[in-house]
Amino acid sequence: MAVKLTEKTAEQLYGIDGITLYTAQAGIKKPDQNDLTLIDIAAGSTVGAVFTTNRFCAAPVRVAKSHLFNEDGVRALIINTGNANAGTGEQGRQDALAVCAAAAGWAGCLPNQVLPFSTGVILEPLPADKIIAALPKMQPAFWDVAARAIMTTDTVPKAASREGKVGEKHTVRATGIAKGSGMIHPNMATMLAFIATDAKVSQPVLQLMTQEIADETFNTITVDGDTSTNDSFVIIATGKNSQSEIDNITDPRYAQLKELLCSLALELAQAIVRDGEGATKFITIEVQNAKTRDEARQAAYAVARSPLVKTAFFASDPNLGRLLAAIGYAGIADLDTGLVEMYLDDILVAEHGGRAASYTEAQGQAVMAKDEITVRIKLHRGQAAATVYTCDLSHGYVSINADYRS
Amino acid sequence: MAVKLTEKTAEQLYGIDGITLYTAQAGIKKPDQNDLTLIDIAAGSTVGAVFTTNRFCAAPVRVAKSHLFNEDGVRALIINTGNANAGTGEQGRQDALAVCAAAAGWAGCLPNQVLPFSTGVILEPLPADKIIAALPKMQPAFWDVAARAIMTTDTVPKAASREGKVGEKHTVRATGIAKGSGMIHPNMATMLAFIATDAKVSQPVLQLMTQEIADETFNTITVDGDTSTNDSFVIIATGKNSQSEIDNITDPRYAQLKELLCSLALELAQAIVRDGEGATKFITIEVQNAKTRDEARQAAYAVARSPLVKTAFFASDPNLGRLLAAIGYAGIADLDTGLVEMYLDDILVAEHGGRAASYTEAQGQAVMAKDEITVRIKLHRGQAAATVYTCDLSHGYVSINADYRS
Repeated sequence: MAVKLTEKTAEQLYGIDGITLYTAQAGIKKPDQNDLTLIDIAAGSTVGAVFTTNRFCAAPVRVAKSHLFNEDGVRALIINTGNANAGTGEQGRQDALAVCAAAAGWAGCLPNQVLPFSTGVILEPLPADKIIAALPKMQPAFWDVAARAIMTTDTVPKAASREGKVGEKHTVRATGIAKGSGMIHPNMATMLAFIATDAKVSQPVLQLMTQEIADETFNTITVDGDTSTNDSFVIIATGKNSQSEIDNITDPRYAQLKELLCSLALELAQAIVRDGEGATKFITIEVQNAKTRDEARQAAYAVARSPLVKTAFFASDPNLGRLLAAIGYAGIADLDTGLVEMYLDDILVAEHGGRAASYTEAQGQAVMAKDEITVRIKLHRGQAAATVYTCDLSHGYVSINADYRS
Repeated sequence: MAVKLTEKTAEQLYGIDGITLYTAQAGIKKPDQNDLTLIDIAAGSTVGAVFTTNRFCAAPVRVAKSHLFNEDGVRALIINTGNANAGTGEQGRQDALAVCAAAAGWAGCLPNQVLPFSTGVILEPLPADKIIAALPKMQPAFWDVAARAIMTTDTVPKAASREGKVGEKHTVRATGIAKGSGMIHPNMATMLAFIATDAKVSQPVLQLMTQEIADETFNTITVDGDTSTNDSFVIIATGKNSQSEIDNITDPRYAQLKELLCSLALELAQAIVRDGEGATKFITIEVQNAKTRDEARQAAYAVARSPLVKTAFFASDPNLGRLLAAIGYAGIADLDTGLVEMYLDDILVAEHGGRAASYTEAQGQAVMAKDEITVRIKLHRGQAAATVYTCDLSHGYVSINADYRS
């Protein structure tokens, strides 16, 4: 029951010159569904990537990090669902390397030019043999098919495209896919997201841009506050649109391209929240007039992570004291609660440390009945702001996570 | 459906010399139930108290803090349920002061000798008139009746007693009550807990002891990670057992009394978790061999707060990778995951960064089927340890909090 999220058709997505996609059924967890995806990348492309900060990061994350900066360039991404290859120790690393070697043989590149990605259950050995056996069976696929092949508990495939001017004469295209629904509280990037563009960008500049975009998009969402072991966000720049390379962040095209990719990444990040496990509402928490951006984000996350706030949204109940309580425990030691203003959409709910005189329960109920709601909190301490996206906490969340492995 | 928690009868609780309890029906939220409690304290008693660190702390918390150290001593506690008087601004403070004044008139003391406590819905004005009108109707009550009168979403009243030697010849008695079920993630003390003892302790020493006990008991529990606006924990020492005053922490009786009261407070704190909203399981998270106690507690809380971990416990599903993931994102930047060992009760689940070779799914299932489970995590970084208590996340939690105001 995703919140206002529909599957994109192939016609709504751009092909990206220099990228070929393949999918297959490896039978890792369930039969008769694609669970293996390979993204073949043309020579000369550059790749930027950011990964989870979870200390129990998965074996493929460790391997992908070590392969990312190899001097021959990245030529393929291999992605499986059904098993995260996390909490699998040294055997997990060997399995990830074996998958890279087999994918390299198939793609005609070196093993260290392959980045592996896995998502699914943690603490179970990766069935690398099934993946390797499935490689020869892969079929070419378009982005819509790949978006479906990387899903786990997702109910809607997540894909998006953008086209825009970068530089005076050139049109740049970008297409991305993402998966994620639970264990969503990114601290680098969330679960798996892959964006490809035909722009030409040097690797160090693309790496920086990837980090900046992750911080503004995937790092602003939370479903359940659980940071995954496998979060990975990758941007591929194939350079096929014949522009000169963007090799400097002061190049005006850097900002143009970043804006275009940021818009795409934000759509994918929000799609993950809209499809958050059990989600019935899409909630935007904006904190304004904070002293620092970190402080603003801290307050926004306190509200966004609170189970009491999330169940109130699920119930469509304007039990808004729960939001004030969350702001109060967000850890801003010298917060003057008398200055805090809180709005639900455009309705002023709280000010001067209490309920606004103008607020009525009927106003609150009207907003809470919607399936997209914005909470705006003004701290009146400075000029910084942050926005965080989340969903409600429903019976669906409990059911999905109590049943996930069965 | 509290986990192994039954109501104490009057016979299981000690009266404390110097304490008289009263309850009444003020009709604050629901008719026909006691929602007002007054604890009358004999002259010469000392009182220690700790309060929530939530910046949106309730009006009664602010007033209680300002009355606690008055030079004439605290003579009464007045406690209402049904309304938290939090997020109520200046009017909330006036209401709390009016209740203190009325209670002082009834108890024959000064208004600043009364500490007010409120619990219930946030962001709604306190019906102080109803409380004041109910004071003359109060009836003497015993601890079991008072334990029931301070309940909100609690399903079982929480009370306990202890008796023990403090000093060579003297027997000390202590009885306490607590309430709390949701919005439980104390950062001083949780919700409301009141302990009275007949020991004689100077105010500064009692205040320090109260802080130390809170840190070892109420500050180690979490139900939903939400720190309340109204958390308060009070210890009253009436001094009626005719010992000389404990006025120094080096007095050997300090440690004896602290141990006795700590044991009592821990039973009450655990009772809150056992009665956690929707709880079907009582979970103990022990983190050992950490570098510091803060680090150990940080890791324990990451596991205890994770919705994914909590739903796995609810499902009795040994989906134990979720616990490793939580340890991984607990924020210990230099954690060597290869050294981490995790046990479920006495079963070694994970070591060397992966699943233990000896572990079987059947072992995990056998432990997960229990209603009391201990998770032991050894970080192998140092000598510090911490224990945290929590419960699972069930459909009951969502139902209770989605329906709470209706």
